[in-house]
Amino acid sequence: MDVFIKDDYLLNDAVSKRLFQYAKEMPIIDYHCHLSPKEIYEDIKFNNITEIWLKGDHYKWRLMRSYGIDEAYITGNKDDKEKFLMWAKALSLAIGNPLYEWCHMELKNYFGYEGILDETTAEEVWQIANNKIKDLSAQKLIRESNVKIICTTDDPIDDLEYHRLMRTQDLGFKVLPAWRPDKVLNIEKKDWMDYIKRLEDVSNMPITSYETLLEALHRRFEFFKGNECRVADHGIAHVPCVPYTEEEIKSIVRKRFNEDTLSLNEIEQFKTALLKELHKWYHTNDWVSQLHYGVKRDNRIHLLRYYGVDAGGDSIGDSGSIDQLADFLNLCDQEGFLPKTILYSLNPNDNTAIDTVMGCFQEGPTKSKLQHGSAWWFNDNYDGMYAQLQSLAAQGYLAGFVGMLTDSRSFTSYARHEYFRRVLCVFLADLVNQGRYPNDENKLRKIVEDVSYNNAKEYFGF
Amino acid sequence: MDVFIKDDYLLNDAVSKRLFQYAKEMPIIDYHCHLSPKEIYEDIKFNNITEIWLKGDHYKWRLMRSYGIDEAYITGNKDDKEKFLMWAKALSLAIGNPLYEWCHMELKNYFGYEGILDETTAEEVWQIANNKIKDLSAQKLIRESNVKIICTTDDPIDDLEYHRLMRTQDLGFKVLPAWRPDKVLNIEKKDWMDYIKRLEDVSNMPITSYETLLEALHRRFEFFKGNECRVADHGIAHVPCVPYTEEEIKSIVRKRFNEDTLSLNEIEQFKTALLKELHKWYHTNDWVSQLHYGVKRDNRIHLLRYYGVDAGGDSIGDSGSIDQLADFLNLCDQEGFLPKTILYSLNPNDNTAIDTVMGCFQEGPTKSKLQHGSAWWFNDNYDGMYAQLQSLAAQGYLAGFVGMLTDSRSFTSYARHEYFRRVLCVFLADLVNQGRYPNDENKLRKIVEDVSYNNAKEYFGF
Amino acid sequence: MDVFIKDDYLLNDAVSKRLFQYAKEMPIIDYHCHLSPKEIYEDIKFNNITEIWLKGDHYKWRLMRSYGIDEAYITGNKDDKEKFLMWAKALSLAIGNPLYEWCHMELKNYFGYEGILDETTAEEVWQIANNKIKDLSAQKLIRESNVKIICTTDDPIDDLEYHRLMRTQDLGFKVLPAWRPDKVLNIEKKDWMDYIKRLEDVSNMPITSYETLLEALHRRFEFFKGNECRVADHGIAHVPCVPYTEEEIKSIVRKRFNEDTLSLNEIEQFKTALLKELHKWYHTNDWVSQLHYGVKRDNRIHLLRYYGVDAGGDSIGDSGSIDQLADFLNLCDQEGFLPKTILYSLNPNDNTAIDTVMGCFQEGPTKSKLQHGSAWWFNDNYDGMYAQLQSLAAQGYLAGFVGMLTDSRSFTSYARHEYFRRVLCVFLADLVNQGRYPNDENKLRKIVEDVSYNNAKEYFGF
Repeated sequence: MDVFIKDDYLLNDAVSKRLFQYAKEMPIIDYHCHLSPKEIYEDIKFNNITEIWLKGDHYKWRLMRSYGIDEAYITGNKDDKEKFLMWAKALSLAIGNPLYEWCHMELKNYFGYEGILDETTAEEVWQIANNKIKDLSAQKLIRESNVKIICTTDDPIDDLEYHRLMRTQDLGFKVLPAWRPDKVLNIEKKDWMDYIKRLEDVSNMPITSYETLLEALHRRFEFFKGNECRVADHGIAHVPCVPYTEEEIKSIVRKRFNEDTLSLNEIEQFKTALLKELHKWYHTNDWVSQLHYGVKRDNRIHLLRYYGVDAGGDSIGDSGSIDQLADFLNLCDQEGFLPKTILYSLNPNDNTAIDTVMGCFQEGPTKSKLQHGSAWWFNDNYDGMYAQLQSLAAQGYLAGFVGMLTDSRSFTSYARHEYFRRVLCVFLADLVNQGRYPNDENKLRKIVEDVSYNNAKEYFGF
Repeated sequence: MDVFIKDDYLLNDAVSKRLFQYAKEMPIIDYHCHLSPKEIYEDIKFNNITEIWLKGDHYKWRLMRSYGIDEAYITGNKDDKEKFLMWAKALSLAIGNPLYEWCHMELKNYFGYEGILDETTAEEVWQIANNKIKDLSAQKLIRESNVKIICTTDDPIDDLEYHRLMRTQDLGFKVLPAWRPDKVLNIEKKDWMDYIKRLEDVSNMPITSYETLLEALHRRFEFFKGNECRVADHGIAHVPCVPYTEEEIKSIVRKRFNEDTLSLNEIEQFKTALLKELHKWYHTNDWVSQLHYGVKRDNRIHLLRYYGVDAGGDSIGDSGSIDQLADFLNLCDQEGFLPKTILYSLNPNDNTAIDTVMGCFQEGPTKSKLQHGSAWWFNDNYDGMYAQLQSLAAQGYLAGFVGMLTDSRSFTSYARHEYFRRVLCVFLADLVNQGRYPNDENKLRKIVEDVSYNNAKEYFGF
Repeated sequence: MDVFIKDDYLLNDAVSKRLFQYAKEMPIIDYHCHLSPKEIYEDIKFNNITEIWLKGDHYKWRLMRSYGIDEAYITGNKDDKEKFLMWAKALSLAIGNPLYEWCHMELKNYFGYEGILDETTAEEVWQIANNKIKDLSAQKLIRESNVKIICTTDDPIDDLEYHRLMRTQDLGFKVLPAWRPDKVLNIEKKDWMDYIKRLEDVSNMPITSYETLLEALHRRFEFFKGNECRVADHGIAHVPCVPYTEEEIKSIVRKRFNEDTLSLNEIEQFKTALLKELHKWYHTNDWVSQLHYGVKRDNRIHLLRYYGVDAGGDSIGDSGSIDQLADFLNLCDQEGFLPKTILYSLNPNDNTAIDTVMGCFQEGPTKSKLQHGSAWWFNDNYDGMYAQLQSLAAQGYLAGFVGMLTDSRSFTSYARHEYFRRVLCVFLADLVNQGRYPNDENKLRKIVEDVSYNNAKEYFGF
């Protein structure tokens, strides 16, 4: 059997090979992911590799659909083995697609299979993986990946039950909640009022106005804070920034409570105001804010109807603007409460612009207070990572970067941290080999170790 | 004489050299070009190389103007030899411009000249090429290029006379029409009513409303279908998608017939509605739709006035949006009639966004139902091709790609297919050499042969 | 001590090494910079390296802030040595940032220090540089850099006193003014009327209308022309192009004089009209116009308030459009007065679009009448330069490029010309090594020498 992922995978020169020796020893802080705290707490086990790989992974679904596979084998009623065999077929020719590399890394790291997955080996891999899977569990996968801290993604109305249960346990890693208030921001959504009602319930107070909405939300914020939350996250089409007055916002919320239709401008005003208010809370409490934007979700109504959200129907969107992003940051900053903030755009064209905007708002004593988030989602691949590192290094201060996160729903996706570190080492080595930075072991080691682990630890205050 | 284009041109490593041996054997399907069916049918011959190279080739005109050459030598009244000598001078220092490479490939492939064209050799090349040109003809050039199928670009009112004449001939290749209904879409153009009158004539029915317009157009559609047309193409500034009702569209067409001025929104409504209707026809008949967008045409009024359209006055335009593209695809898809569609944006920045939008709409059984068209026009060069392949591979399924087309008016431009295949082999080899895909002869060979030929054959149903 | 910047810095192959031997011999024409004519005339000297490096260099301030350094060490009241030591600390790990490379080149070229600047060497470098600095002066630095011509950046109301004084001196180089009428264009700014009053004074005529504004401005234009000015420059958020009538413009100016509020459209109309008028003057007098756009300035109000403009609060902005750029060029061209124009966008995504727009307007006899300015500001680094060369070469005529400018406020920034030439040689060598252009010494030498110096000399008519 040919070994595909060797120790020096991606590392094609002496410098990167040497640097990766430092990188691989560093623990992982996964400061943003979508793992289920319940599944971690319950230490779930898996019946077969299809459960890990193909349940809920819209990355893989999209590749299968591009290959022309019938939906029955993707999200449909074919059995798990049939689905796996079909997946192996689709993957087999997917040259240049990150899934090709991730899957083989996961097979090696978690299932001990070092060969190639294709139609001729799929049956064998199915057996090997499913034999091995008996020994695996959520917690074991996390521990074996050398993960120290996980931040999940949680709704303000969540009771954080599993986080609280895990807090008293010694798991070998910590699981912290993260605050994701998308649903309260999305005032234009049909089910917004339903959400507000649920917020009323958990916050134990009536919500009848913008002021009471803020108060109820702030109770939840305090609850999250009391449960060791230090990180917020926002999934938004774009960073909003339109002028408004407090009176206008109050009136907009009243209109919404009266089920009046809001104009596009009113929706943007509400989002600007509430997002600004939230950032004040973050700053005051030394939380880190994350802004994930540049997305257009649920493009294909057909998918949304039959499979729901996160079914593979999302893409890059261009409703936002650099100017608005800069203006929003200034809106917070001019009143003195711009928190530490990580910016992620789904559009890789935004790389340089993000880095130049960030540069305007950097200030001590925080090392790189504004961060350009690691190549996100569709960009989470070799070239996407390389381009993000290149832009960040040229426009800002790469050595202060908080580095990789998985943003994943899968317990085997920690292989992506390894992937990131390999690309990081290649990127640094390329600069050294070009002669653009000295081949200085201590400095390079420090950069590698800081970006892999130390910076995140310091930045988030873990 | 130094040989410039050697057998391993662009192929600087063992893998790419090996893969190109497979690529070069595959026939060509040129599924979109602007060759004249009349010239093919009449098997035209050429008096000299200027006729092939400089008559009507606005790529070359632009380079000559950038060099500072007087228009008399470009589109003016200088004689063909003077023009050629001036062209040689301009080309000689055009390092990094695709014309430099294409011209030398064409000299080698079609004229047997392997050296360098510059001021010192121009006289010699003029003689060599013109001697050789006596043996060349439109059909011979096509056959020698191993072309099996050509799809031309035809207006719905075209009588397809030459296609019909060629259908009964054994030329060694097939020439099929392609449906390009731009003129009926462009309701804002001054001569739209004149065009509608001509459409009335050829469809043999009065056009007095949106309904009758559709009916007349559909008669032409059936006529094209009866003449083996399987492909549509659209040259649009952007993919339109604004809300409309059928009543509004009927009213808009009435207004236009009354010579009332249409608002920008009305123009966009009409285009959205008609383009959607057309896509319904395409889907129903299993045609492939092509959308060429991201263009701003006739930027320089001066050029338009003196030389007409296609004189070198076009550029990338940014009137469109990714969000609208996704919404238009969904508009068709949600009613169940999204056809196989190939997307080409003139802006290379759109690569990743296109690929992520496509991923939302892929579905079996078609292999890569949505396609990201090969690097188009200004991007039809080494880096443009490489970037398109890279994005498609990372976001989608490169192995399902229908590959290269010429989009050309010239009979010698088939060298670009060779150029594309060389770049494809380099791209694949780079991934293999990086260690990101196994050096597996069978798989790589299949990918090369599929992208070069098999995918197009299957996708278009030729 | 390890030598960091060696003779073959960045040049990793035989071709680039050979080509750089030609490049390095060419003199420099710095056709756009922000050096102070007063400081040149007075041949200022420096007390220490902090004065040269950290006074007024917002590039360095941004890096220090990203590192997390207290503002006291940046623009604050710490002493120069403390600031330098802190700078060394911040720079030391700034891998991939152009400042890392520029600083080391400047240390080598102007201060004779060939080693690495970091915390361990900062004290030594401080001594070495400050010893050497005694021998340096503004004029000496310029002469030693082999600069032949400098174009400064001057306001129309400037009296050009120092330019006039220097005209009669034999400095070994020429210092010419450049016309930058931003303040008169910015009709929306609060202090516009104050500026108009100063323009009244220096032009010695009352300004009471658009006509008199133009007349006063034209007097200054003639004054600049009489002082050997041949170049204009414009720093604008975007290239404006909205329809207007002369009557509307007159009315807009009247409104502004009456302190009425202008609409956004009126502001854009005014800018379009005045910019067009200015371009008529440029064309008539064979001046070169430069358009610097794609910027969003003073994003962080906090910085603007405490440190003023140019404090590091600027970023890429996206208020402009490619369509408008093309339309503005046509607006001038269709009336026959499009001058030679250099386009610089701060957004590197605009590279290809700019090149395709330029191609529409090229015409002899000028070699590359439209120019794509060298990678600007945030793009003034290895990858930014490489990308600009790549796009220009693929879409246009690289051999006609006017090449590098510093756009700098610092007397040691001429090292950037050397940096540009090294990247140029690498870029050309890469094409040769790929086999895409012949390894022809004469042609490559001509390209290198033309882009380094000859083209600028010819284009500007110096």
